Amino acid sequence: MLTRTSTQSLTGQLADRLAERIRNRLLAPGARLPSVRECARQQGVSPYTVVAAYDQLLAQGLVEARRQRGFYVRDSAPVPESPRNPAHAVPEVPPMMASRVPADASSLIRSMFHRPSDKPQPGMGVFPPDWMASTFMATAVRRVTTTSALQELSLQYGEPSGDLALRRSLSQKLVRINVPAGPDQIVTTIGATHALDIVSRSLLRAGDPVMVEEPGWALEFARLEALGMRILPVPRRADGPDLDVMAQYCALHKPKLFVSVSVLHNPTGYSLTPGSAHRVLKLANEHDFHIVEDDTYSHLAPEHATRLSALDGLQRTIYVSGFAKILAPNWRIGFLAASPALKERLLETKLLATLTSPTLFERALSWCIDQGQLRRHSERIRTRLDGARGRAVKLAMAHGCTFASEPAGLFGWVDTGVDTDALTQRMLDQGYLLAPGSLFHARRPPSTMMRINFATSQDAVFWKVFSRVRDEL
Amino acid sequence: MLTRTSTQSLTGQLADRLAERIRNRLLAPGARLPSVRECARQQGVSPYTVVAAYDQLLAQGLVEARRQRGFYVRDSAPVPESPRNPAHAVPEVPPMMASRVPADASSLIRSMFHRPSDKPQPGMGVFPPDWMASTFMATAVRRVTTTSALQELSLQYGEPSGDLALRRSLSQKLVRINVPAGPDQIVTTIGATHALDIVSRSLLRAGDPVMVEEPGWALEFARLEALGMRILPVPRRADGPDLDVMAQYCALHKPKLFVSVSVLHNPTGYSLTPGSAHRVLKLANEHDFHIVEDDTYSHLAPEHATRLSALDGLQRTIYVSGFAKILAPNWRIGFLAASPALKERLLETKLLATLTSPTLFERALSWCIDQGQLRRHSERIRTRLDGARGRAVKLAMAHGCTFASEPAGLFGWVDTGVDTDALTQRMLDQGYLLAPGSLFHARRPPSTMMRINFATSQDAVFWKVFSRVRDEL
Repeated sequence: MLTRTSTQSLTGQLADRLAERIRNRLLAPGARLPSVRECARQQGVSPYTVVAAYDQLLAQGLVEARRQRGFYVRDSAPVPESPRNPAHAVPEVPPMMASRVPADASSLIRSMFHRPSDKPQPGMGVFPPDWMASTFMATAVRRVTTTSALQELSLQYGEPSGDLALRRSLSQKLVRINVPAGPDQIVTTIGATHALDIVSRSLLRAGDPVMVEEPGWALEFARLEALGMRILPVPRRADGPDLDVMAQYCALHKPKLFVSVSVLHNPTGYSLTPGSAHRVLKLANEHDFHIVEDDTYSHLAPEHATRLSALDGLQRTIYVSGFAKILAPNWRIGFLAASPALKERLLETKLLATLTSPTLFERALSWCIDQGQLRRHSERIRTRLDGARGRAVKLAMAHGCTFASEPAGLFGWVDTGVDTDALTQRMLDQGYLLAPGSLFHARRPPSTMMRINFATSQDAVFWKVFSRVRDEL
Repeated sequence: MLTRTSTQSLTGQLADRLAERIRNRLLAPGARLPSVRECARQQGVSPYTVVAAYDQLLAQGLVEARRQRGFYVRDSAPVPESPRNPAHAVPEVPPMMASRVPADASSLIRSMFHRPSDKPQPGMGVFPPDWMASTFMATAVRRVTTTSALQELSLQYGEPSGDLALRRSLSQKLVRINVPAGPDQIVTTIGATHALDIVSRSLLRAGDPVMVEEPGWALEFARLEALGMRILPVPRRADGPDLDVMAQYCALHKPKLFVSVSVLHNPTGYSLTPGSAHRVLKLANEHDFHIVEDDTYSHLAPEHATRLSALDGLQRTIYVSGFAKILAPNWRIGFLAASPALKERLLETKLLATLTSPTLFERALSWCIDQGQLRRHSERIRTRLDGARGRAVKLAMAHGCTFASEPAGLFGWVDTGVDTDALTQRMLDQGYLLAPGSLFHARRPPSTMMRINFATSQDAVFWKVFSRVRDEL
């Protein structure tokens, strides 16, 4: 909230907060600012204050005035660094601005890296840091950062495929879930994101048609779009992708690739059934497309869950996973596993994109796996998540939400009954980040759905604010 | 060499070594194996032994027989893991195979990550680990790996643009070389390679023409090729790129981007003159193309060296650099700096490709810069390199090589008088990796040039072997 006791004028406070929201893409390029009158009412200040704040933004080149239509965030706004003002060291909640933001997906993704407040954030895609905190991680890191190990692992580029110790640990992990991948079939990457990027770049050329589950993760849509691919959205059902739609795409467009989160699908939490897996692979064989199976949530799923890569034996599937969701998002360790021939092509792309990947954390992670620490850690988190999920589901339903799918894994896919883009903007004013349904669709249509993170949605205060704001819409 | 005292048969030894060379891409897909008679003579074994070894490779799917033409390495050879045989724990030198390998550039690049022996490797692109060894690096890492710092920096994705502390340090470094970039104009990357990749992906679409200096770094050619770009090679002269050629390209092809290593160019060691820099920028303004300035060797150059980004003030230039050549290749820290609007586009691409980058090393590097450790370390290495360069130049000239350019920086660009692709294969037999001239050209024509690393070319033994092998060609 703006404060009259601040050393800074109300105009300055309002302008600074808007500027920060624009910089962090919480107000995306193209978004319309509310009318002067509306903003004045929301903020409890005079219209004169709002006009002066908008003028400052105009002068900074952050917004533009369109005749008769109001103020809009500029498409490529210059992004000067925020002033070194200690009053701004802790980001404050910026005021509600546009009622519905026509944001591009990557703007929305960027906004997700900026926590609007210290409150639990139901829109986040990862566990809160305190859930992942462990003591073994420090032990693992100390082992690779003794002076001699540090030098050895730092001063050379390292293996192009990634640290051999880690690839051996991963190979053993994969064999346990029946994915037959030797260490030489594995390539480590900068998170699962990089692995998916490498697969798209290696197997597709601009203009190629690619099937992607919908709803699905915004980053995948955005990347394929940026690479110039033709996205063919495949409705995701409880048992797996909609095979009729896939068959039609195959007949009409000859897609080269299918991108799938088989197990604990984001955002629905669905897991593929064996029958559906078999039929998907049959279709892939008939129509000669590859499948990249994104198993990002593998650590939250039972080992016996059905994976396409296990049925197919990595013939035309490429397996992708990572450790951001269970151990340490910032270690940025992911990997892919593929047939020996395909692995070579994928490795070429890794080399061209980043050369090698940092070995130190890879080696530390290998230790965590080999010592059984990661397995025990995953079990602890799964147990805690089960409890949190139960509480969050009760709260969500008590506040008028319905679940579109049986709650499972990290995310719930929830129908709020109102437009969640508008809701997201209003909730930001209250210091909460939501993940609106439009984020999970290739064309980002308005949606009443939202994804909640069960680990961060057990707070009764959030749900109270949520119902109040929703009812005001 | 093959040994009769080994527990393994001569056939087994030969087959294993060839298989290893194929796996490591020291024998690239498409390369022809020597005739049975030639191989038998080279290895001092019977033709029967060679036939049996080739048969093993055939059975393993690593080579194929072409009627009347001999044996060729398969295009997408399956790459099974090498057996866990302790006799193979230390890679041995594989025998010389093909006299001239029609290798693709990325195969050649991959081969550069496999040291064929523990001897000094004149073809390597980095300083040997013992040159870069330091004590301050361990201190820096300890500061960020205390239990609390480790948790804080590991358990969240981190800033999309990269660690703010590092971006501030980098901004100050850039200001000292007159490149005006605030922390908000900087994006950290997975090495300079990733930065260059991000720039190509953000500014170009498949089929776009792009000007690249020639000779130039193979990875740049290979990546642009893989992205489907049209490469327009620009001859690099002592004072800068050939402006007449650039002007012609501009008139004919409207290139979108020019990729340049202005300072201590790889492989020639040339540095751009102020006059040439001015004319390049004038051309860029007239024909509206961007310039990405790869300043990978900045730490080996004087601060007053001419940089396009300094003259241009990052209007249409993008500055790229990294720390693989001075501090730690495996930390994989690079960065780019650009105008505020362009930076936003480049950051989007980083997010789509890898999300964030690992913060811990970024924070540690920031400390190394702020404490002046990196500056002192660079000075020590420059002094040591000056001495090494003097010795290497004398040895090279004493062994019949001539320098195509005034020796400077890390690399010498040397005329050997013989085909260096053939020479490279022969020298591998002796345990030495060379960087043949063909590597540095977009179309990889035969060349008598090679690049030497001054830090690893001061060994008289190498030069003796070199002259002997060259004279045998």
